[in-house]
Amino acid sequence: MLRTGLLGAGRIGHVHAKAITGHAASELTAVSDYVPEAAEKLAAEYGSTARTTDEILADPQIDAVLIATSTDTHSDLIEAATAAGKAVLCEKPVDLSLDRARACQAKVKESGRDVMLGFNRRFDPSFNALKQALDAGEIGKPEMLAVTSFDPALPPVEYIKVSGGLFRDMMIHDFDIANFLMGEPPVTISAVGSSLVDPAIGAEGDVDTAAVTLSYADGRIAVIRNSRRAAYGYDQRIELLGSKGMLQAENMVENTVVKSNADGVTAAKPMHFFLERYMPAYRIEWDAFVTAVTNGTPFPATLADGVTALAMAEAATRSRASGAPVALSDV
Amino acid sequence: MLRTGLLGAGRIGHVHAKAITGHAASELTAVSDYVPEAAEKLAAEYGSTARTTDEILADPQIDAVLIATSTDTHSDLIEAATAAGKAVLCEKPVDLSLDRARACQAKVKESGRDVMLGFNRRFDPSFNALKQALDAGEIGKPEMLAVTSFDPALPPVEYIKVSGGLFRDMMIHDFDIANFLMGEPPVTISAVGSSLVDPAIGAEGDVDTAAVTLSYADGRIAVIRNSRRAAYGYDQRIELLGSKGMLQAENMVENTVVKSNADGVTAAKPMHFFLERYMPAYRIEWDAFVTAVTNGTPFPATLADGVTALAMAEAATRSRASGAPVALSDV
Amino acid sequence: MLRTGLLGAGRIGHVHAKAITGHAASELTAVSDYVPEAAEKLAAEYGSTARTTDEILADPQIDAVLIATSTDTHSDLIEAATAAGKAVLCEKPVDLSLDRARACQAKVKESGRDVMLGFNRRFDPSFNALKQALDAGEIGKPEMLAVTSFDPALPPVEYIKVSGGLFRDMMIHDFDIANFLMGEPPVTISAVGSSLVDPAIGAEGDVDTAAVTLSYADGRIAVIRNSRRAAYGYDQRIELLGSKGMLQAENMVENTVVKSNADGVTAAKPMHFFLERYMPAYRIEWDAFVTAVTNGTPFPATLADGVTALAMAEAATRSRASGAPVALSDV
Amino acid sequence: MLRTGLLGAGRIGHVHAKAITGHAASELTAVSDYVPEAAEKLAAEYGSTARTTDEILADPQIDAVLIATSTDTHSDLIEAATAAGKAVLCEKPVDLSLDRARACQAKVKESGRDVMLGFNRRFDPSFNALKQALDAGEIGKPEMLAVTSFDPALPPVEYIKVSGGLFRDMMIHDFDIANFLMGEPPVTISAVGSSLVDPAIGAEGDVDTAAVTLSYADGRIAVIRNSRRAAYGYDQRIELLGSKGMLQAENMVENTVVKSNADGVTAAKPMHFFLERYMPAYRIEWDAFVTAVTNGTPFPATLADGVTALAMAEAATRSRASGAPVALSDV
Repeated sequence: MLRTGLLGAGRIGHVHAKAITGHAASELTAVSDYVPEAAEKLAAEYGSTARTTDEILADPQIDAVLIATSTDTHSDLIEAATAAGKAVLCEKPVDLSLDRARACQAKVKESGRDVMLGFNRRFDPSFNALKQALDAGEIGKPEMLAVTSFDPALPPVEYIKVSGGLFRDMMIHDFDIANFLMGEPPVTISAVGSSLVDPAIGAEGDVDTAAVTLSYADGRIAVIRNSRRAAYGYDQRIELLGSKGMLQAENMVENTVVKSNADGVTAAKPMHFFLERYMPAYRIEWDAFVTAVTNGTPFPATLADGVTALAMAEAATRSRASGAPVALSDV
Repeated sequence: MLRTGLLGAGRIGHVHAKAITGHAASELTAVSDYVPEAAEKLAAEYGSTARTTDEILADPQIDAVLIATSTDTHSDLIEAATAAGKAVLCEKPVDLSLDRARACQAKVKESGRDVMLGFNRRFDPSFNALKQALDAGEIGKPEMLAVTSFDPALPPVEYIKVSGGLFRDMMIHDFDIANFLMGEPPVTISAVGSSLVDPAIGAEGDVDTAAVTLSYADGRIAVIRNSRRAAYGYDQRIELLGSKGMLQAENMVENTVVKSNADGVTAAKPMHFFLERYMPAYRIEWDAFVTAVTNGTPFPATLADGVTALAMAEAATRSRASGAPVALSDV
Repeated sequence: MLRTGLLGAGRIGHVHAKAITGHAASELTAVSDYVPEAAEKLAAEYGSTARTTDEILADPQIDAVLIATSTDTHSDLIEAATAAGKAVLCEKPVDLSLDRARACQAKVKESGRDVMLGFNRRFDPSFNALKQALDAGEIGKPEMLAVTSFDPALPPVEYIKVSGGLFRDMMIHDFDIANFLMGEPPVTISAVGSSLVDPAIGAEGDVDTAAVTLSYADGRIAVIRNSRRAAYGYDQRIELLGSKGMLQAENMVENTVVKSNADGVTAAKPMHFFLERYMPAYRIEWDAFVTAVTNGTPFPATLADGVTALAMAEAATRSRASGAPVALSDV
Repeated sequence: MLRTGLLGAGRIGHVHAKAITGHAASELTAVSDYVPEAAEKLAAEYGSTARTTDEILADPQIDAVLIATSTDTHSDLIEAATAAGKAVLCEKPVDLSLDRARACQAKVKESGRDVMLGFNRRFDPSFNALKQALDAGEIGKPEMLAVTSFDPALPPVEYIKVSGGLFRDMMIHDFDIANFLMGEPPVTISAVGSSLVDPAIGAEGDVDTAAVTLSYADGRIAVIRNSRRAAYGYDQRIELLGSKGMLQAENMVENTVVKSNADGVTAAKPMHFFLERYMPAYRIEWDAFVTAVTNGTPFPATLADGVTALAMAEAATRSRASGAPVALSDV
């Protein structure tokens, strides 16, 4: 039984609490939050106890911590938790600062441990089935990847302001999926982006609509498209052309009902947002963490993966600003 | 070059004129209609000549006739045209009277010739691809067939009155498709039907909504559903369950555009009606006729097929009236 | 907190244990099984206690029982549990004997209580969305229903022998779905069926492939098709034609990956069987039970619904044997 | 009746001959080719006459010419034919040299006439339905376009050598579709490309796999992906995200048959190549030309459109070579 402390009782904290308590080999031993009432509320809901983060890290009975706090605390908590000997699963991104993330990575490395990064999409059953088909050689050598990732609606501008921008906050998932599928990071990154949905986002120096092209050492290509607003819901698709065929992962939809009438043939929309769409992925992610910790095997998404994705976000941000491609080795 | 006389210049006559003139190895030599102006109009449109039916049948330069007149004239014209030595393609059904159709069949048999029946759906590219996959053993032994065949809208009640009823006029296509796919006629036929769309149809003793079950000697089953009114268009689907899988032929749609918005994900409707949906089938049907006549090979849909389908319609009509299953051997 | 006793620790008992323990307002207080070890194993797995059925029924601390035992015990347990004042959710079918089921229904009626029947498909999100669209008038008046329900593979012949036959064991779900959607039972039932998958099933007097037609008082029609073996998985579809359009509930699939190569464009199969396909439905069913018991509101699927579906199975069985339609009022 | 001379009797010439002869208001008066036998063969097939290009241009009885010769002759023939007072439909691209194309454009402008460019995809029924839905405001303001355009197989390297390269030969269609849908040319073009399919193509300085990003003055974005080899057929899709939803034009498929078995649920491949996929578009294109000439109304795809698309191909070629974005105003 993996005794787990959950740091952070916000929206994503609830998702993880559900996964931790729903797993036969883990228990939610304690919860902390910088708003103590939030920790108490979540703890009550899942039959756990609210404590401070320091108490949790100091408790030798606690085996693992899941870091679901705000991004600016991730590096510090990763360092503290690994120093305290905990197994760590940390939400993405590692940090908004690439330098800070790299320092964290160095410190963790010294400890001889690794940290699992919460790139939940690697665990999505459909994306995973696509990966397995790819690895089984079903489309030959992958040549051109296209990732479509649109949110259903704009977050509040306050959120945007502290998010680190679309590339670090939103596209970071897609950068990691590209690495997951292409098997290596790209050499060059070229980004365009605009604030078409809300000019207030542009006023903050950020974008809400973007397209990024990744070029690989052997000439392969990936294209990622993001929008903060798809009127029809949460659009999460992958398409990978290979030498012998193509693999696509299509959207998961709300239900399977199809209505045919004088206006056309209408199916249900994609599931509305990530809590619903990726709940199975969060459960599988947690199971992968529990399994790796229990067996002492490597994590399927590491701190290094998190730093690489963050470096890609940094390169994309620079490319968008300068209008020129950026070599990943230059960031 | 197959010199062809077209008997009947109505809606279906135009379809066939298009197929005949669009074929490299046939020409539309003459057209007749009991309304001479109709024949003249069609002839002008396709660069042909209007003549009387008698003239066409008497002309030794004419090799083939396509009978696209009203159903009550089919048997007479089949007999006259085969007697005149023409190759004959006749629209379905052979006749509204099963006795008359059988007499016609006997007479044609005496002539030592055969006649091709216009069961256009056998030539539909998708239905044909389904048949080929079946014959190739792709789903093993066929066990249960389901045919869905809905018209977009009610025909005028005047048409209904002389149509012979839904089973002879509309479901006859589906009876033939069942025979085409199951490889033999059924033993027993059980029909239910109602006039749900328009009570005036019920007042005529006919139905507009019907389901028919066919039972085969070896226990196999087919279900055919018909409606005279599908608000979304012309619904023409086949589904065949076999021991190793299932084959479905889905609708052909107006275009491939899909719109996703807050109301759902909407694709185009099925093509509206048979002229559009089955135009490729009519062309392939004509090509099959030309090829069979030219090569002296058997027709892919024969007068016997027409009589069998008509007998099934008769059995279904009786079963609907009596409420009990009817053996095909009893009609 | 609804304190619940689970009677029956077999495969379906595990499904319900998952739903009961996963619900915030219910707890799995005790489990019984005629094989005590099975009860103990399930109890251990879900943090519950194994007891005898008598102990559970006698315990005033237990509010509700879920009957998931073998069918031949359902009526007795329903009577005993309602007599003991428990709220009852019983798996389908009520009984294999229509007379016994009716006697049970009469006895429960005397008690002034009702019992919820486990027609899980009424709670399937897609079937439910279809029902809501129907009730919202989106296709006008329903006219012709088609239910497709194929199992992936034959059960053991031993199971078949005690199952009551395909109509009582398997199609009973589809009879209930027809009642659910059409809003009333049919007047007449006409069935055909064969043992195409395994002659051993025919030797037992049962069928593995069947088509049933339901005729309603106002002329509406429903067609149900069942097969015990669909090589591609668990095929569960509904199609309802109405005066203004059509509603379809399509299969739920294993994942959303599509592979395009020289052989075609291949999507995932339907989810393999009912445990996986209907797990969400079982959870929603349980929630509906908890809510109805808590609020004292009527059950969304009642003992009367169970008896009606059983009567339809009886009528279908007789029709299949006699080859003639059977009036539901005659069984 | 538009009396038409067809210049060029190659593969695409046959496509146009079919459209010209199949149109009620045009006739194929004469055919020329630099291989006289080719012209004679095509003429015989369609009941026309083989003549020289000079004869055709000099014949005052000929109203229109369709230029379907090799690209290097387009500009000269456009100039000669407009000078001879013919209505002209010319296949894309205008020329491989942007300078030559611009000179041609200037000369035609002097003549006070316009020339229609054969951007057949503008006339594809599905792409056109997408455009109409866009113009009707069904997705609000268009924000991000994605065009997928993959050929089924590599052309011979000899063809590649004289083709002008992927951007001028293949992606030029997609550049024009982007202009058609976005309503204006982009400001900046950024291209990546590789020879992943065949290194011999790279040895020629060309690419077989490419992604191009177009940036518009108001911040909108378009992404075009091309590959010379999709193992599953001819992949031609458009996807346009707007402020209120998304429009997609999916592939046209060979037939509507779906096979479900133990391996999955398999549908037919996309139609194999452009002759089949775009035949309806070629017919509609020709009808649009005939209508514009007859009514004296503007062409729906002009020489200016051809020059703009060619400039975009030039910019993409330069961007691919330099690795930096290129302003369209700089070419």
